[in-house]
Amino acid sequence: MTRVFITGAAGFIGSNLTDRLLAEGRTVVGWDNFSTGRREFLADALKRPAFSLVRGDNLDAEALRAAMAGCDFVFHLAANADVRYGLQHPERDIQQNTIATFHMLEAMRANGIKRMAFSSTGSVYGEAATIPTPEDAPFPVQTSLYAASKLACEGLIQAYCEGYGFEAHIFRFVSILGERYTHGHVFDFMKQLREHPDYLRVLGDGTQRKSYLHVGDCVSALVSIPAKGFAPDVRQRVAVLNLGTAEYCMVKDSIGWIAARLGISPRLEFTGGERGWVGDNPFIFLDTVRALSTGWKPNLSIREGVERTVDWLAANEWIFSARE
Amino acid sequence: MTRVFITGAAGFIGSNLTDRLLAEGRTVVGWDNFSTGRREFLADALKRPAFSLVRGDNLDAEALRAAMAGCDFVFHLAANADVRYGLQHPERDIQQNTIATFHMLEAMRANGIKRMAFSSTGSVYGEAATIPTPEDAPFPVQTSLYAASKLACEGLIQAYCEGYGFEAHIFRFVSILGERYTHGHVFDFMKQLREHPDYLRVLGDGTQRKSYLHVGDCVSALVSIPAKGFAPDVRQRVAVLNLGTAEYCMVKDSIGWIAARLGISPRLEFTGGERGWVGDNPFIFLDTVRALSTGWKPNLSIREGVERTVDWLAANEWIFSARE
Repeated sequence: MTRVFITGAAGFIGSNLTDRLLAEGRTVVGWDNFSTGRREFLADALKRPAFSLVRGDNLDAEALRAAMAGCDFVFHLAANADVRYGLQHPERDIQQNTIATFHMLEAMRANGIKRMAFSSTGSVYGEAATIPTPEDAPFPVQTSLYAASKLACEGLIQAYCEGYGFEAHIFRFVSILGERYTHGHVFDFMKQLREHPDYLRVLGDGTQRKSYLHVGDCVSALVSIPAKGFAPDVRQRVAVLNLGTAEYCMVKDSIGWIAARLGISPRLEFTGGERGWVGDNPFIFLDTVRALSTGWKPNLSIREGVERTVDWLAANEWIFSARE
Repeated sequence: MTRVFITGAAGFIGSNLTDRLLAEGRTVVGWDNFSTGRREFLADALKRPAFSLVRGDNLDAEALRAAMAGCDFVFHLAANADVRYGLQHPERDIQQNTIATFHMLEAMRANGIKRMAFSSTGSVYGEAATIPTPEDAPFPVQTSLYAASKLACEGLIQAYCEGYGFEAHIFRFVSILGERYTHGHVFDFMKQLREHPDYLRVLGDGTQRKSYLHVGDCVSALVSIPAKGFAPDVRQRVAVLNLGTAEYCMVKDSIGWIAARLGISPRLEFTGGERGWVGDNPFIFLDTVRALSTGWKPNLSIREGVERTVDWLAANEWIFSARE
């Protein structure tokens, strides 16, 4: 891993990963279409000679192939992460996740690059019967276009490992939060509370149980786990690993932490129902024994992660007025 | 199920299904791009006023939407079934399976059609650790582009069931054989033996264990199981069912049955290795308890299915000289 290509480099996780890899002395080529990525997130990276940035979209297969030339590892993070509104534009998940990943794999193949890591999601487990959910949980039924399109990416990557000798680490994330976080419940709540600090509208009944991981801990896993490689006797060089903390919280717990951090007591209005939206999963909690067995472990609790997110959003109010 | 739309209607399974539905008094609209489908297979159907045929490709979203108008059930069978050569043209599985299925779902949505059945594959289990493999086997790792692209279809269909209130039956087939069979090991062997009856080249070492189902039994399941519908209290109306016989055979068993049926004794040459090709699965045997619990059961054994296939191919030699 000397010259690293990162799709979605200007995004929340991508820009944090970029900074980490540059700090470790790697050369990084960042790729982003800036549909949700922010140039501001790469302000530090852009000052470093080991970083170069290419503006481009994964759907432009030729440009992607050209940009990737000379790299030896790909972090594929670019995605449509607009989980909640998938039903309003179903083509977006197919294009920005599934087809984009196919183009990424083909660009790797054209360039002779065989090592990669991919950001998948714990949502691929659907409404899991086994909680905490291990990677080899019973074959799930999909409940959202976002998760279905990510599962499609996983399958493609696995087939490339079997068929073309690729080596891949597929990470199934819980929700990630922290510095540069630009969507999700903490973002939504903070945005509302800026406008009306005395009142908060909450999707669902607030009892949805979710797990979160701080972006710093996420990036540590992305960097440290693939670096260990694979045992020489492994036939199919693909590892699937859940990433999360060993805890979960209720949405209303998180609201309490946010309010306490801000020193306010908003009146809460719940839209009701155990799901915040169609395809929402009322309980996500992943078994992370496999990731922990590599020596990686998260340093921050969910509460600490939420608080850091609140602090960053409060200090970066420009993010709320920027285009969505 | 009064006016039924069948994608891949001119194919092996599609044409058998078409004939069955017409015999039961349904109106059928057949859709096929004739990439592998044969007009000859629809010779009987085309004589019936209840059948209409539209030539078109699932990648032509607009034509597909128009052709589907007025139907109330869709059997989505059109696919790239060229399992073995996926690595030579990886885009074909993505386009003909995954994207084609997305267009099919969107065409249904545009037409207000909510009920469907889909032909998936037992290959989605990868190299299963649990054999016979049940539908809720541990979350698998994909080993072929074909299976990965079919899994992607399953996920999309499931997300449409959750998100748009679709009702779907997803069938994971073992290999299907019988009348109008145009690819697979019996076809390959018969084709070779026509050219040189004294000699047969076999991919792998002949010990690959596979399960087969006769197309008549397959069609019975496709017609009878979705007709039962879903219990009114089911939240997500999607059923996943394995289809196969309660037995498997070795490739070399099948060779023995074929040779006996033809009254020949070819010399065998094995290419070696436990997999016939990259992504081949050395052991496929599905648990069919779920399908059997609906009252469906296969009438023919694997040997009977192989023999019927041999008889049909011997009586329809034109199939070997037709374009592949």
